[in-house]
Amino acid sequence: MNRSTSLRVRLPVFVLVLEVVIIALYAAFVTYDDNANAKFQTNETNPMENSVYRDYPYFADVQVMIFIGFGCLLAFFRFYGFSGMVFNFLTATFSIQWAIVIQGFFQFNYGGKIHLGVINLLYAEFACAVVTYLFWSRAWEDESRSAPGHGFAGDPYLFCDRVGWVTFVLYRPSLNKGHAKEITSYSSDILSVMGTLFLWVFWPSFNSALTIKGDDQHRAILHTFIGLSSSTITAFALSAVFNKRGKLTMADVQNVTLAGGVTVGASVDMMISPVAAYALGVMGCTACFFGYKYLTPFMAQHLRIQDQCGIHNLHGLTGLISSIAGICAIILATEETYGPSMYQIFSHRAPPEGDPKLLELQKLIPGLKPGLGRTGQEQALYQVAAIFSTIAAASVGGLLTGFVMKLSFMASPSDEDCFDDELFFDMPDDFNSVEFKMPMKHEDKEQMSSENTKV
Amino acid sequence: MNRSTSLRVRLPVFVLVLEVVIIALYAAFVTYDDNANAKFQTNETNPMENSVYRDYPYFADVQVMIFIGFGCLLAFFRFYGFSGMVFNFLTATFSIQWAIVIQGFFQFNYGGKIHLGVINLLYAEFACAVVTYLFWSRAWEDESRSAPGHGFAGDPYLFCDRVGWVTFVLYRPSLNKGHAKEITSYSSDILSVMGTLFLWVFWPSFNSALTIKGDDQHRAILHTFIGLSSSTITAFALSAVFNKRGKLTMADVQNVTLAGGVTVGASVDMMISPVAAYALGVMGCTACFFGYKYLTPFMAQHLRIQDQCGIHNLHGLTGLISSIAGICAIILATEETYGPSMYQIFSHRAPPEGDPKLLELQKLIPGLKPGLGRTGQEQALYQVAAIFSTIAAASVGGLLTGFVMKLSFMASPSDEDCFDDELFFDMPDDFNSVEFKMPMKHEDKEQMSSENTKV
Amino acid sequence: MNRSTSLRVRLPVFVLVLEVVIIALYAAFVTYDDNANAKFQTNETNPMENSVYRDYPYFADVQVMIFIGFGCLLAFFRFYGFSGMVFNFLTATFSIQWAIVIQGFFQFNYGGKIHLGVINLLYAEFACAVVTYLFWSRAWEDESRSAPGHGFAGDPYLFCDRVGWVTFVLYRPSLNKGHAKEITSYSSDILSVMGTLFLWVFWPSFNSALTIKGDDQHRAILHTFIGLSSSTITAFALSAVFNKRGKLTMADVQNVTLAGGVTVGASVDMMISPVAAYALGVMGCTACFFGYKYLTPFMAQHLRIQDQCGIHNLHGLTGLISSIAGICAIILATEETYGPSMYQIFSHRAPPEGDPKLLELQKLIPGLKPGLGRTGQEQALYQVAAIFSTIAAASVGGLLTGFVMKLSFMASPSDEDCFDDELFFDMPDDFNSVEFKMPMKHEDKEQMSSENTKV
Repeated sequence: MNRSTSLRVRLPVFVLVLEVVIIALYAAFVTYDDNANAKFQTNETNPMENSVYRDYPYFADVQVMIFIGFGCLLAFFRFYGFSGMVFNFLTATFSIQWAIVIQGFFQFNYGGKIHLGVINLLYAEFACAVVTYLFWSRAWEDESRSAPGHGFAGDPYLFCDRVGWVTFVLYRPSLNKGHAKEITSYSSDILSVMGTLFLWVFWPSFNSALTIKGDDQHRAILHTFIGLSSSTITAFALSAVFNKRGKLTMADVQNVTLAGGVTVGASVDMMISPVAAYALGVMGCTACFFGYKYLTPFMAQHLRIQDQCGIHNLHGLTGLISSIAGICAIILATEETYGPSMYQIFSHRAPPEGDPKLLELQKLIPGLKPGLGRTGQEQALYQVAAIFSTIAAASVGGLLTGFVMKLSFMASPSDEDCFDDELFFDMPDDFNSVEFKMPMKHEDKEQMSSENTKV
Repeated sequence: MNRSTSLRVRLPVFVLVLEVVIIALYAAFVTYDDNANAKFQTNETNPMENSVYRDYPYFADVQVMIFIGFGCLLAFFRFYGFSGMVFNFLTATFSIQWAIVIQGFFQFNYGGKIHLGVINLLYAEFACAVVTYLFWSRAWEDESRSAPGHGFAGDPYLFCDRVGWVTFVLYRPSLNKGHAKEITSYSSDILSVMGTLFLWVFWPSFNSALTIKGDDQHRAILHTFIGLSSSTITAFALSAVFNKRGKLTMADVQNVTLAGGVTVGASVDMMISPVAAYALGVMGCTACFFGYKYLTPFMAQHLRIQDQCGIHNLHGLTGLISSIAGICAIILATEETYGPSMYQIFSHRAPPEGDPKLLELQKLIPGLKPGLGRTGQEQALYQVAAIFSTIAAASVGGLLTGFVMKLSFMASPSDEDCFDDELFFDMPDDFNSVEFKMPMKHEDKEQMSSENTKV
Repeated sequence: MNRSTSLRVRLPVFVLVLEVVIIALYAAFVTYDDNANAKFQTNETNPMENSVYRDYPYFADVQVMIFIGFGCLLAFFRFYGFSGMVFNFLTATFSIQWAIVIQGFFQFNYGGKIHLGVINLLYAEFACAVVTYLFWSRAWEDESRSAPGHGFAGDPYLFCDRVGWVTFVLYRPSLNKGHAKEITSYSSDILSVMGTLFLWVFWPSFNSALTIKGDDQHRAILHTFIGLSSSTITAFALSAVFNKRGKLTMADVQNVTLAGGVTVGASVDMMISPVAAYALGVMGCTACFFGYKYLTPFMAQHLRIQDQCGIHNLHGLTGLISSIAGICAIILATEETYGPSMYQIFSHRAPPEGDPKLLELQKLIPGLKPGLGRTGQEQALYQVAAIFSTIAAASVGGLLTGFVMKLSFMASPSDEDCFDDELFFDMPDDFNSVEFKMPMKHEDKEQMSSENTKV
């Protein structure tokens, strides 16, 4: 037992500090959103029009994805099921708490107070997908109002690539040959597929949670479903065709099937047409599959990046495809396709204050705010800039996070203890007998098997 | 390893062809539903009244049922968990994609285009319950507008019986004595119960997803819940009373409990009264239980029908009860019970164009369309005809599907490889040690057990 | 095999009697709620304003919690997974059916009929958390209209403590030293964490399901989420700090994390401020953790109370904290914080009939009903009285239930058969080989382990 992995002092101290800080910040700065404040309810207020009814269903679905979907999916290692599921639970809870304050400071801050509603929780959940996200938060602030999808669905995926940079710093040469415990079991694989299914089922809610309400959200749901569907059957086909014996590989079923949900991200609420969503699903899945097959081993050997969960493939590569698709969709957007609501979806393309066209449009869309009068090409250039700044922020943030995680006071396990629940949990008695079954010699199995079939 | 079961060529070719066909059809014919089309949004449009908010919650619930509920339920075989869960995933994704196009062609086709919204996905999911469904689609078209419940909840169940005919063609005499691997395990049984619980919890959404909004949907939810509840306790009682040692059988808990959800199907949105829903649950459960007990073994021995999942019992028998209940409910429906909205629920009973009663009714229900002036008895006769045509279509479709599945290019496993994941998946190492435990001799177990208790 | 545990006669007879009684009661007294009755729909009725759309989403979420969340959580014993999951299914179905009638009689009864809608099912689910609840139902009736949270969220938790009294009567001295089968396994622990995650994710729906719609429900969701979050990280910290080797204990992750959802219960919809919800989560978690650590062993040894599931800690102690917080929130409630809607939330504080202030308030809140003109302090006293009466009712009810469960005709297992699925279920073959692994001697394991690593 490596003393340095004990959570006895570090975890409680960390939690205590966090709780004191959060209580202080909450007490000083956090109040209710107007929709959650009894004081602002009058006889004009229709309770059923409270924002909670627009936001909570999507919040609940994303909760299922983060806590149950990812929890199960990450429990795919045979001896690392507790850790995968439980540390996902802990990390998600931590980062949502933190994100509420940071996000609140940047986005829901007026009159010197952070205003808390279910919408903040929803934003915090998106932030939760990336553990620290200060840089992103700022980049997001500037651009989020200018392009749909962007900042909501496309970029988080691309930003997830920062986790790849974390793995760069955490590189362990000895793990490169593979680790004896880096294996799955029959039941852990099934649990992991359940996680995939939860993610698959609720991904449309994730991609559409922060779009404009109405037809935009409707399209986001359609595109995500179509992209996931085409991605799924492509993943099965690729899995079979690149397997020597024509069998399916569970890792493909668990991960590559989901790629389509990412690729449609950046253009999810635009008028890209159903066939484009279908094609994006196929492309994203293909890129993700070959990423797993060739890029992950290449990076592990030559670029010292160990990426057990395939973040680069599921989020990096597909996020890039998604962003390029988003740029194309922005360039191709015309008033002919979108009608006047184009200036609502791409708010920076709306005519500026004083432009007579603005008044004309405001007759058609009463709440339309003046924009910057950008053309489609200009808007696309800003989008390109946003992609590069996201990649840069992800890299810097990822490297920093990696170095922090390498600091000696973090409970970092020795190489041989990696992928082992025993390091962090009191284990039930049968854990050792489960372990026992693993390294059975092949001849023994054959013999047993032949003996058994005689019975 | 039987070469003929390799998915290496067949699956990818099949997927490729499907994808090319679907991309071509999408590009040529598929556009957005008006509710998902930015162009049709004006200052008169209230985003929160978009159809997506009426349909998506039910769509998501049915997704959970199909992908997670059925996925887990079908993972009940000890060595067939991967296959049960993953092939359900693949098949559902395939058939929904296909159904979107077929269903769209028959139902959402105007101006030469299929109009795609979440409502299409919802219809496609219902179609997904039956793998090919061209015949049904057509039968459904004619009658769906004439009777509630019908075509939405009752018939899909009855139509599922077609799967029974598939099994008729796929009959394998050697499997009749039982297969060594046709067994469950402790963990596969638990997983399967989880599937049952997901189906149980969301069944009210399934039965009410396609009813008329408002009080109709309200009743559909109530009846389904009541029917499932009475069905569940009846299943426990029957399971205990027909077990020699007064114990519960997991297969009953996993399947028979759900029968009530099927039996209330065809009359789910009518004014049948809560007590009728309760009684239907009890009846459906009883029929399903005795079906499993006597009909399945009888069919396997005398009618060469192997029905591992009990489709005949859970869907065939109960679907028949459901349909008969639906007919009774149609005959008994009066304006006294339903008020003027009767002519909305049973649209063919509305007075025909030009009838002065139509104008009178249209004052009470503004959007009421002229009907055919059918009486309750006439309507019931059409319903009877619909049942027979559904059974006929199910039989023909099932036989055809069976023959297609028997064609030599399909990856059909040899008898001894049935119920074995190893045929289609790269298996984790512990799969063989799991297998090892299976055929342990009873004396050995006794001995081990007694040794252990001494410790 | 103990003959007396056979379910062959008892269960079916019990079910039959229940079904006959329920069918008779339904036939005589149960009709549809106006929202579910076709007769009451006119051209003035907007189908989308049907109460089903306000109630069903919360009903479905609570269904997931009860059937899947609790089902999985209770499957934490290694040899008691079937029983935990399946008896939870049976008991929940039983008690919801029963509660619909009882609850309906007390609350939805007018014109000599019980009026059934989804709202009744929702109330019945809350009752379902406590198996018999006649006393509570009555206490609840008197006070429910006078204080928010109360009766909805705080009291059910406190009332759950009655289950503690059941265990007092069911005390078995021989079990006190611990039972050989009172253990978990790797997979049962993972399943149980899944249950916890389902409860965690949907707890905001549970706590907010029966509040007033609008900002009240919004706050209830926020407070529950915040309370659960702070509770969760506190649970991890406490688990690590009180473990000798600084490891995490799965039982803490499975249970103590949820304490915050209980502690915010009684004040969940009041204007307590986000920081108070955060602090309540920390406090509740701490009380629950030390309850498990010191109170449960103390009660088992000195007070003859065996509490395998920690009901006292998760519901008793935290329910008390919740109630005290509720009282403080009631005392501190002012019109300045709540605005005029205070008299809607605390309806007994509204001015009585004839008071000129009532007319003034009714201008601001059109539907406001006259109250009793109570002050905050008076209201708090009534709340204190309600707490004591709840504890008293819980004690009496719990003792009665315990004695009924001890009656000889109940299938009560012998001491050594406790925690064993085999008693009530036909088991799959591998159940014995699973059992085999349990009592392996430590030396053997060490030896095997070293042998294996050599391979």
